Parts: sequence; structure tokens; C-alpha cells
Amino acid sequence: MRVVVTDPNLLPLRAELEALAPQAELVWLPDDLLGALKTADVLVGPAFTQEMADAAPNLRLVQVAGAGTDRVEATGVPVANTYHHEDSIAEYIVWALIALRRELPQADAALRRNRWRSPVYDAALPQPETLASARVGFLGFGHIGRATWRVLQAFGAQAQAVTASGRADGLSWAGDTSQLPRLLEESNVLVVSAPLTETTRGIIGAAELSTLGADGVLVNVARGPLVQEQALYDALRDRTIRGAALDVWYSYPTGGDHAQPSKAPFGDLDNVLLTPHLSGITRQTFRGRIHDIAANLTALAEGDELRNLT
Amino acid sequence: MRVVVTDPNLLPLRAELEALAPQAELVWLPDDLLGALKTADVLVGPAFTQEMADAAPNLRLVQVAGAGTDRVEATGVPVANTYHHEDSIAEYIVWALIALRRELPQADAALRRNRWRSPVYDAALPQPETLASARVGFLGFGHIGRATWRVLQAFGAQAQAVTASGRADGLSWAGDTSQLPRLLEESNVLVVSAPLTETTRGIIGAAELSTLGADGVLVNVARGPLVQEQALYDALRDRTIRGAALDVWYSYPTGGDHAQPSKAPFGDLDNVLLTPHLSGITRQTFRGRIHDIAANLTALAEGDELRNLT
Repeated sequence: MRVVVTDPNLLPLRAELEALAPQAELVWLPDDLLGALKTADVLVGPAFTQEMADAAPNLRLVQVAGAGTDRVEATGVPVANTYHHEDSIAEYIVWALIALRRELPQADAALRRNRWRSPVYDAALPQPETLASARVGFLGFGHIGRATWRVLQAFGAQAQAVTASGRADGLSWAGDTSQLPRLLEESNVLVVSAPLTETTRGIIGAAELSTLGADGVLVNVARGPLVQEQALYDALRDRTIRGAALDVWYSYPTGGDHAQPSKAPFGDLDNVLLTPHLSGITRQTFRGRIHDIAANLTALAEGDELRNLT
Repeated sequence: MRVVVTDPNLLPLRAELEALAPQAELVWLPDDLLGALKTADVLVGPAFTQEMADAAPNLRLVQVAGAGTDRVEATGVPVANTYHHEDSIAEYIVWALIALRRELPQADAALRRNRWRSPVYDAALPQPETLASARVGFLGFGHIGRATWRVLQAFGAQAQAVTASGRADGLSWAGDTSQLPRLLEESNVLVVSAPLTETTRGIIGAAELSTLGADGVLVNVARGPLVQEQALYDALRDRTIRGAALDVWYSYPTGGDHAQPSKAPFGDLDNVLLTPHLSGITRQTFRGRIHDIAANLTALAEGDELRNLT
């Protein structure tokens, strides 16, 4: 069985994947992709165009090495995805919430200038609060929300969700999108982890941020455009909300590792954490994924059922 | 009962403390401290000198509003302390470990210059690891260590300790100071939370940091001088260890909010988190403490037993 791998994120785990799927002949990141696809049984990668489909007459599976299948354009071949990013993203969210609520990056920047920025040394600063007083509103409560809630409970936080599934799973409550105003009213943390659809595009704007309020912090690990770009920048600059951690953006590199992530100058603000869509990018995520991928390669070789077909 | 309060950290909770101890007449941060002490039954504050003792003939209790009683110099009056900082410090440690192991501050700094610093965009960067692969070595395993271990377990970490008590409490193992080399050998995280004594002063030096190793991160929430200042700086600059979060220092402000925390230029390094001894400074910490303080004021008024006498 010939397997063409186009996802560079799997390279660090190449030996592990090859050991897990000894029956497969893996072709890694071929220079001539269309040529390599001629005899391929499986494509492991994020994108599948019609041109690729036309070049791959024997292809039996497109295995995306992540959750999102939005770059699989051609039809006619079964598509499987894989997750395992949820614990890494939950960890990122915990990091961001502690940092934002306790203003730890600001304290770090100040101490590098020999200023001891804490209410102990400057009585004008408020005493920050731990996650024990966090009231977390999840916009979307799928894999990521549930993994995040599992760890946040260890810190004594309280939570509720607006989610399509309506599953509450130990939250105070869960409701549909009509409950978004209530979610923002009752929460001082907003975790955005819903899929981007025509319904959710721009769902968080100036009015929603104002309801979240001056103690509120926002973390977006879903897709940038769920939150209106200029409204978010304005709310952070004007301290309509306390802070935000943004891992997903409005523009991405089209090659290489440089791009301005937004038209708005978020990087000028000290109450924002900016990260380049890395919240799920860990060794643990990809180790989990290669087990799913190897299982599907084995299943395909042995005629068994494939997992995570979309 | 007259109670003189000298600890400014309690000011934000003044109304709450007065409501909890209605039988006490509280005198807050008096300009003439020695004068106020003449008729005082209780002093609530961090320091008690012989001069203060001589001025306070009726004093029946020195109530420190924190754990450390090292500034209580005069004897002859019962001394009580209080904790409640452990959950706040545990939260700080979790923040620091995620930041340091995943190099999130470095990614934030890079994205402010439009560089997407992640292995997805730069294959030369290693995939970071979650806390699931953290092997945490606790140097000291008291209130703080146990609270930290409680939350770290939610992330799948593994841990061991060198501790005077020898209590393991669900760790892989716990041993005395003779086991420090083994602790450093088996851990990729070192949490320093032991008291500063003549035995522990400088206990972590160049050899210990070298054993912790290039993947290792250190968090010091105890007292600066447990870790040798220059050896720590050298190890961070030379990447003998991966990174460190330092909340406790070698020099402190003697007034105001400015001081150089170390002779070494830690602030020039990007693999260090610098914070001004704030890991335990939260509203939740002081709310817990005023309950202990009010309970002791009530006990004193009613002739009951005092708590947390040292």
C-alpha cells in the first residue's frame, strides 16, 4: 500500500508512524506530488484538490491529519479526520486565563524595568483574582470545550455554554444561540470554540463585548472571524473588556512564516496575548493523530472499518 | 478589644474584616504606630520589633496576615500566622510551566513583529510538549507543593519530591535531601517551594541545574537565595536549562515600588518569566486570611483557643 504524506507536522513523528504501519510504504512530502499520487492508495494531508483527485486513480482514502477538512475540495474519495488537539488547547486556555486575569505579562514587563507591579508595592493596583472566581462562558462546547472544562474544574471555576448540541456535561447550564446574551451577562470569561459557519461569523461584536464587561476576558481558539476584528480591537484598546488571548486570526501567511495577522494593531496592546495558531500544536497532539492514521492504514489493508470518516 | 492593623494588603478587605469581627475596634495603618500600640490588644501585621513590644504593654497576640514570621523579632507575646496562598501559588506555577515548556511568551513577542513562531510555519522549531509529559520534582512539599500537585494531576503530569516531612501523598516517591540528585535526574520541572534555612541556602547551584538538563524548567516561589544567583543566570543564558519563572528575588524594594531584583540581568533573557513576589497575592488569599484573623479575634474575646500559633 502506497501512502503519500503531505503534512509536514508529521515529520517529527516519521519513525513512530512507520513503525505503527509497517504494511504501508510511506512517501514523504514528494517534490512531484501529482506524480506520486499516480500510484497512491492513501493521501495523508490537509488539502485535496480536483487536480490531485484527477492524478490519483487508485486513491481509496484521504486522511486529514487534523480536525478541519475545509481544504478537501474534491469529492468521490472517503475522507477521514482526527482530533487529539483538545488537551493541548485546554492547556493553552488555562495559561491564557491565568495570565490575563492576573495581568502576569504586564508584571513581567514592568519588572524588567525594575518596577514591582503588584498591589503589595503599589496600593493603586487591585488584588487580582484566581480562577476560583472565573465564570466561564463557552461559545461552542465540543471536544475543546469539554477538555477545557475538565481542567478548569480543578481550579474551582464555574461554567455555562451556548452550544448546538445542548449537552451540559456538568456545566451550570447549556443553551442554544438565543441564550448568548445571557451567557455574556453571567460570564467573566468567554471561550470561543465554535465552528465558523454563516451563523457564527461575526457573532461576537461590540454589543456582545460590552455585555461581557470590563472584568471580562476572551480567548479565541476557533477561527478569527467569529469575532468582529475592529470591534475586538476597539474593546481591548478602550478596556471595554479586560483582555484577550488570540490564537486564530484574520490573515495568515501564504508561504513562509511572516504575515500581519490583522489589519488592527493588536500587537501594540499590553492586554492581549498573540499566538500564531499554535494552541493545538504539540507533540502529544500529533502522537495521538498518528495512532489514528496508522489504525486507518491497517484497517484499509485488512478490509476493516475506517474510523473518523466525515 | 483594640486591634492595630499594619498590613496594607488587608485594606481592600477592610469592610469584610470589620463585619467578621464586630467586637473588635480596628485601627488601620496608624501614623503614630507606637502610640497606637499603647492600648492595643492585638497587632495584625508582618513585623514586630522590640521597640514595638516595649510600647505595647497590653498586647496579647501578634497576628501575622501571612505565612512568614521572620520579621517578628520580639518575644513574649503569642504569634499566629495564616496561609491560604497555596491555591494562588499553584495557579501561578501552572501558568509558568505551560508558558515555559511551550515557549508561549516567545511566540507572542514574535507575532508582534508578524513572525509566526511555531513548527507549523518554521520546521526548525521543535514541537512543544504538554504537561502530560511533565515530570515534576518538588523541592519542598508542604501547603504549596500539595496544592500544586492537586491541579497538575488534572493535566496528566507525574511528580516526586524531596521534602523534610517525607509525605508522598500520591507522588511517585518522596525522599530527604540526600535524594536531591535523583530528583533532578528524574525530573524535567523543578518547583522550589522549600523554606530558606542554613541547609537550603544555595542548595540549587550549577551542578544541580546541569542535572535538571536542557529540557528542564525551574519555578522558584520560595525564597530567591535557595537558588544560587549567578549559577541560575548562567544556566539560563547558556540554555543549560530551558527556562525559569522567578517570583522571589535577591533584592527587594526598601520603599516604593522600584528595585533591581538581582545583580544579574535576568530581564535581558527571553526564557525567563520575572514577577515581583506576587504568586500568592490574590483576593482569594486575603479573603481566606481575614477569616482566620477574625476567628482569632473572636477566640481572644471569648477566651477560646487560638488557631495557627507558631
